[in-house]
Amino acid sequence: MEPRPQMEVNEFKDMAKEMVDYIGNYLENIRDRQVLPSVQPGYLRPLIPAEAPESPDSWPEVMADIERVIMPGVTHWHSPRFHAYFPTANSYPAIVADMLSGAIACIGFTWIASPACTELEVVMLDWLGKMLDLPPEFLACSGGKGGGVIQGTASEATLVALLGAKARALRNAKKERPELAESDIVSKLVGYASDQAHSSVERAGLLGGVRLRLLPADDNYALRGDTLKKAIEEDRAAGLIPFYAVATLGTTCTCAFDNLEELGRVAEEEKVWLHVDAAYAGSAFICPEFRHLMAGVQRADSFNFNPHKWMLVNFDCSAMWLRDPSDVVDAFNVDPLYLKHDQQGSAPDYRHWQIPLGRRFRALKLWFVLRLYGVANLQKHIRGQVKLAKEFEEMVRADDRFEVVAEVICGLVCFRLKGASNEPSEALLKRINGHGKIHLVPSKVRDVYFLRLAVCSRYTNSEDIRQSWDEVRTQADELLAAK
Amino acid sequence: MEPRPQMEVNEFKDMAKEMVDYIGNYLENIRDRQVLPSVQPGYLRPLIPAEAPESPDSWPEVMADIERVIMPGVTHWHSPRFHAYFPTANSYPAIVADMLSGAIACIGFTWIASPACTELEVVMLDWLGKMLDLPPEFLACSGGKGGGVIQGTASEATLVALLGAKARALRNAKKERPELAESDIVSKLVGYASDQAHSSVERAGLLGGVRLRLLPADDNYALRGDTLKKAIEEDRAAGLIPFYAVATLGTTCTCAFDNLEELGRVAEEEKVWLHVDAAYAGSAFICPEFRHLMAGVQRADSFNFNPHKWMLVNFDCSAMWLRDPSDVVDAFNVDPLYLKHDQQGSAPDYRHWQIPLGRRFRALKLWFVLRLYGVANLQKHIRGQVKLAKEFEEMVRADDRFEVVAEVICGLVCFRLKGASNEPSEALLKRINGHGKIHLVPSKVRDVYFLRLAVCSRYTNSEDIRQSWDEVRTQADELLAAK
Repeated sequence: MEPRPQMEVNEFKDMAKEMVDYIGNYLENIRDRQVLPSVQPGYLRPLIPAEAPESPDSWPEVMADIERVIMPGVTHWHSPRFHAYFPTANSYPAIVADMLSGAIACIGFTWIASPACTELEVVMLDWLGKMLDLPPEFLACSGGKGGGVIQGTASEATLVALLGAKARALRNAKKERPELAESDIVSKLVGYASDQAHSSVERAGLLGGVRLRLLPADDNYALRGDTLKKAIEEDRAAGLIPFYAVATLGTTCTCAFDNLEELGRVAEEEKVWLHVDAAYAGSAFICPEFRHLMAGVQRADSFNFNPHKWMLVNFDCSAMWLRDPSDVVDAFNVDPLYLKHDQQGSAPDYRHWQIPLGRRFRALKLWFVLRLYGVANLQKHIRGQVKLAKEFEEMVRADDRFEVVAEVICGLVCFRLKGASNEPSEALLKRINGHGKIHLVPSKVRDVYFLRLAVCSRYTNSEDIRQSWDEVRTQADELLAAK
Repeated sequence: MEPRPQMEVNEFKDMAKEMVDYIGNYLENIRDRQVLPSVQPGYLRPLIPAEAPESPDSWPEVMADIERVIMPGVTHWHSPRFHAYFPTANSYPAIVADMLSGAIACIGFTWIASPACTELEVVMLDWLGKMLDLPPEFLACSGGKGGGVIQGTASEATLVALLGAKARALRNAKKERPELAESDIVSKLVGYASDQAHSSVERAGLLGGVRLRLLPADDNYALRGDTLKKAIEEDRAAGLIPFYAVATLGTTCTCAFDNLEELGRVAEEEKVWLHVDAAYAGSAFICPEFRHLMAGVQRADSFNFNPHKWMLVNFDCSAMWLRDPSDVVDAFNVDPLYLKHDQQGSAPDYRHWQIPLGRRFRALKLWFVLRLYGVANLQKHIRGQVKLAKEFEEMVRADDRFEVVAEVICGLVCFRLKGASNEPSEALLKRINGHGKIHLVPSKVRDVYFLRLAVCSRYTNSEDIRQSWDEVRTQADELLAAK
């Protein structure tokens, strides 16, 4: 029997336009939904069949199941009262660009596989680099070796940088100490990051099979040059080979900034690869008043931030620049005939710059967002969210049961109930998330537990922030009354 | 000065609907476009400004630039006469699902970060595993340890499996030979794949910092059990530690199938992790008549194929099943407080199953494609494309200037001009791609150069295949006449 026919173009047009309306309505009314769902693990399986259908389901059935099956289990990251983790971006221009990317659906692993995909990416990373005022050595338009690439995530950028640094260190060590076997060299390699660095930095060490030392940050949660210098000297004295350091600009726990000026000088003196992880906070550097926090970047080997976090480009779009991509390209280069082409060398083949082989046409998202917002509106977005964080901070400071535990620089406020014990703050967070009206996640630094309120949604306004604070305050009232 | 306002919801709805029409028209008329663009490297930069605009560009300007800037540089992977590499998927249901994914825009790294994102993925990998008739140990619904996950690419699946195997081997070796340092163990680890395996397998060895031996395939380009057995025995005798083997089902060069039945037995006896890379051909296993090619899969530790290649789910959607995910989870587990949640353990936290931390809601694409096509239509798609490949094969065989160099099993035909020299076939491919009417890539096995014609687009029909053959024949006529 011939199966019922699949969807054709007119049905697609109707269905996709219905989805457009659904999306617009979902986002404009997102503040009416409970931010954190109340489902339990395993909720979804009983709601749908145990097997795929033999013949097609109808579009109205599928559409109806979005509210029936999916939405009850969605954590609404774009609710104005979602304050967990850091923001992930969502904007109309990015969604429209992604539709086009899905239609073209090329796999841009080499230039010839879709020249527009590679070339728009090269130029968009230049546009973006100029918006951040990155040193020209990082930009392809400067005509040197450097250039940018879109990675999937900051984790991948950290790993790519580590693997590039490892390849460089191996090459140098083999030259200087030809008696050593490669495995001996690898066993001596040591990289560094702050103990405040993101978990993906430690994970990159695990994945890359090299030692990674987490060094103590100072009282402002910043890694300082002296600390790195001392660690490198100790390790050299112990026969190890320091090769890599990560400076974090905007840590996940408290949005602290490592002292890049100092770290850059040490990295340069000690000839270790310096990678800058500005995953969240990097977007702020499109505003000149935040750029003092990236002073020293001219000494970095690689720099990464996520427009998919705070710059309104939907996930995934993690921008990475390399001063000299050759170590990365050489480390990853496996070159079968079916991927060779005549123009090799005259444009980047991005497959050598990343872990996966395949890649979507993601530069379209950057292009649409930069053009349909314009730089001034993106700056306004950043400044507006920082202002909201300061408003929340002020309300916390005005309530003498609470304390703010780290300087509020970007869109994150870290706070807790005063006192030596963490228990009241832990109980408070449990109540808040249990109630489901707003969503926060905690962190702990040096045994001090605190709540993190990140301004995430582009819909969040002053009234939302006041309501979020009311919820915190109310839950604290009830908690303390119950005691 | 206040910037011009950014796009709001009504503008989005208009713009997105215009894009829907553009996409439908682009795909339905794609056969009118030249498959391979004629631009030169650097073509794009002069077409757009050197910097992002300060104030927003208008939507009509952006829309107009798609044809002016992007399309001249697009390689049209969905043209019915695109026959390069392997297919990449593109379907209307997947595009619509991705729109929804972009609107929800959650980052599903943990269950709590969006329960629906994790739970739909768990169930979709069960649906898909049942469609392939995978052994129940791989499926979450069987209640054991096993389960599936969506990776970005097959390269990542191969690397994840290798890193899991490495973690398991390290743990075992430390137990058995506690005198060895970890770096000594790593330096003794050795993995295996066919010399016909994809370049990403060799690259996984490079990235994972372990030795990977490429073993000779047999005359049908298949890796056999005896070859693996002999290599393992040699290496053990030399003091090495065999730990990992990759079986390829559907190689990139010729779509050959390693003998999984034999390799599985050897892997089981020798206790090495067996990973199955069925990136392209795995989709064929939804048709029972192809499943004899995966006989032996019950002995694999991990199995991977790409619905984003041949099963009409847009990139990225690489399905991977693990018999026992604990080695992978343990290898990657870095667990900061801000990612902990109360339901840990009762549902998978997929961040531990993959290289990146962040992940999109990709299961929606699978759900929409499986429901809006239905299994029968997907089988019809596979069978139709195999039939087209056989039609092309027949035309090649009917022309006695040509020879077919490998058995046509799925949608790939490998052929060349007869004779000892590769030069005529190389010249032929250059002419064909230079002419731009169809697009093929070459391969070379054991110094024999050949052309690969893959049936890629879902729009390709018998008439297209005849025209593609006419183009090959005409170019061959002209080439041979010029000699």
